[in-house]
Amino acid sequence: MLDQHNNKRKRGHAMATDRSRYAARGVSSGKEDVHRAIEPLERGLFPGAFCTIFPDIAGDPAFGSIQHVDGAGTKSSLAYMASLEGFDSSVWEGIAQDSLVMNVDDLACVGAVGRMHVSQIIGRNKFLIPAEAVEAIIIGCKRFCDKMREFGFDLVYVGGETADLPDLVRTVTVDNSVSTRVRLTEVIDASRMVPGDVIIGFSSTGQARWENRPNSGIGSNGLTNARHDALSNYYTAVPESHSPQVPKTLVYRGDYRLGDPLPGDSHFTIGSALLSPTRTYLPLIRRLLELAPVGQIHGLIHCSGGGQTKIGKFGGPGNRYVKDYCFFVPPLFAMLQDRSGLSWKEMFAVYNMGHRLEAVVPESAEWACFAAATWAGIEARRVGQVERSSSGKNEVVIVVPEGTFTY
Amino acid sequence: MLDQHNNKRKRGHAMATDRSRYAARGVSSGKEDVHRAIEPLERGLFPGAFCTIFPDIAGDPAFGSIQHVDGAGTKSSLAYMASLEGFDSSVWEGIAQDSLVMNVDDLACVGAVGRMHVSQIIGRNKFLIPAEAVEAIIIGCKRFCDKMREFGFDLVYVGGETADLPDLVRTVTVDNSVSTRVRLTEVIDASRMVPGDVIIGFSSTGQARWENRPNSGIGSNGLTNARHDALSNYYTAVPESHSPQVPKTLVYRGDYRLGDPLPGDSHFTIGSALLSPTRTYLPLIRRLLELAPVGQIHGLIHCSGGGQTKIGKFGGPGNRYVKDYCFFVPPLFAMLQDRSGLSWKEMFAVYNMGHRLEAVVPESAEWACFAAATWAGIEARRVGQVERSSSGKNEVVIVVPEGTFTY
Repeated sequence: MLDQHNNKRKRGHAMATDRSRYAARGVSSGKEDVHRAIEPLERGLFPGAFCTIFPDIAGDPAFGSIQHVDGAGTKSSLAYMASLEGFDSSVWEGIAQDSLVMNVDDLACVGAVGRMHVSQIIGRNKFLIPAEAVEAIIIGCKRFCDKMREFGFDLVYVGGETADLPDLVRTVTVDNSVSTRVRLTEVIDASRMVPGDVIIGFSSTGQARWENRPNSGIGSNGLTNARHDALSNYYTAVPESHSPQVPKTLVYRGDYRLGDPLPGDSHFTIGSALLSPTRTYLPLIRRLLELAPVGQIHGLIHCSGGGQTKIGKFGGPGNRYVKDYCFFVPPLFAMLQDRSGLSWKEMFAVYNMGHRLEAVVPESAEWACFAAATWAGIEARRVGQVERSSSGKNEVVIVVPEGTFTY
Repeated sequence: MLDQHNNKRKRGHAMATDRSRYAARGVSSGKEDVHRAIEPLERGLFPGAFCTIFPDIAGDPAFGSIQHVDGAGTKSSLAYMASLEGFDSSVWEGIAQDSLVMNVDDLACVGAVGRMHVSQIIGRNKFLIPAEAVEAIIIGCKRFCDKMREFGFDLVYVGGETADLPDLVRTVTVDNSVSTRVRLTEVIDASRMVPGDVIIGFSSTGQARWENRPNSGIGSNGLTNARHDALSNYYTAVPESHSPQVPKTLVYRGDYRLGDPLPGDSHFTIGSALLSPTRTYLPLIRRLLELAPVGQIHGLIHCSGGGQTKIGKFGGPGNRYVKDYCFFVPPLFAMLQDRSGLSWKEMFAVYNMGHRLEAVVPESAEWACFAAATWAGIEARRVGQVERSSSGKNEVVIVVPEGTFTY
């Protein structure tokens, strides 16, 4: 949903029908139009890294600085709908986590696991969003920082803004800015990913040791389509939850109410699955960095916007990322494909479909990934490997029971 | 409009009628409800400073770090309306400046004039906001950084996000995050403001040496009321520019179209005056810090949210800030008072009314303020002085031809 104006180069191709639906809902997996505007921006000290790293704000030539901004996207609109149906304030704390994880997990993918300064930006429509909700969003951000501190992360909540913007915001927007520094010798530079490396996927479902309930696997991407494809037209009674410019036929065209059970997974309702807070992989990544020398970690990819195709934007050119042993598609994503009619190919290009983090390492370092995952209580597997592409361009090939998809 | 979750303590009192109108438009000058949520947040190394300063992100005990977030508020809705009426893309570049200045001028008020890392966060409704507008917002941010670099500021644009959020955003939101470091011995700590100090105001109008056209004096505060009080019901034809929850009687209840001349000032139309980009005082502040030892600058106050009453939140307790020689009220604010029917007392508590920066210094340092202002091409005057309040609490007293107002 969000598009970093820098290293996060976006793929342009998606099946026409899928793209037309995106366009009709005012979102896109490509956002090519904005790219012209940001082309001139520099790529930083490590042009191939997952995040843009700039010269140190403190002027130390041994360090680089990163400042990352991202948010929960339209997941907050879903939280608003859930609150109307009696879900408790934990949905708002979850939104705070969604927004924060979209930042900190990106940062950890370049090896930045030191002190982070966290700011929060909330834009609300005071007519609809009570102070209690804002309070829960702020508390949620602080609680997440406290929880990560238990795992050795120096996440410092340095405050934020709450703007009353009813003339701009339909319900509420939640974003974070996170800044940190990284020692240049410890940077994980995804440009090091080479043919012969193996790709280790870390499950986005289950319950990690730092989580107090199971995760559905959802992140904070693709929620506009997920909401409209899964939820029934019952919710057209909540006009403030969506854009009036979206054609009626694409608004809440699914079959479900938020309280309905999620097919195939007794842990979740449709609402609790869609609102499942985005998992952070921070403790796992930190553990991995303790076990394997940084030089052994050729790439860490946060499969957020772009889903399983994101890796294709990094490394190479000429890398062919073949994933032929992915996790089974979690029930939530299976339901979304069934209800949306999106092609499986596009589903893998929008959602993580089972793992939201992957490590690209030489086979000799695979054990460290598995050890870190086992410690974290997160399932991991070798989902594929890096090969040389015949085209000389990067390719991503996904081989799953649903088909073989090349991007 | 925006409410820093930290040092920016807000005053609660405003005349009931004014407050009820704020409430009816879903904005407030108080935002007491959110304060409960943020009470527990720490105030940093200098609890009385204008911005919250945290221990250095680089771990240097001689430095502090600040990360500031703020935005253009509903001024972007006005830019959208102007673009519909044929204003060129410079209105979008102006919005980028509005958002950025709301951050960097706050930072400079604690003496932070070193390297700043600037991120931008744009949330747009793709149905209404074309790529050209987003491009202008991004370019505007970079151009401002480049311009300030000419004046010795190391403003580094480190990228940002553009989110397509039609289900959340009516038109477009523009925010920035700016982080920097400051040497602790160079911090301007507003808690040093004491009785006997003089208050020097720096005009928000005219044309500074780094500006290429005159400024109307407007900042990025109070624009929700300014839009609805100044503009005519002609604009009810642009429903996406305001909240549907606002009572019809409070929507665009003024007399003007954006192209109408601003009464009393031939430089501006109503539109160009309301959209006049928020002036930055950065070069003036830097010059002032070169001329006067930091110990001589007891306080720098950015009169943004809270307008002329903002100073009352700092220094003391027991300071009485008397401003009895303010600038003449600029034509834009006079028009807004006339059309809004807001009391003059509330006008001074919402808008800067003539100066958006004030320096609080011992009389012996006054010359440095005037010298810096003259260099900058910005009018300055001694608007008042700090006295001891009888109540033991901070007070702000404004003595103007329109009346004497105590806050």
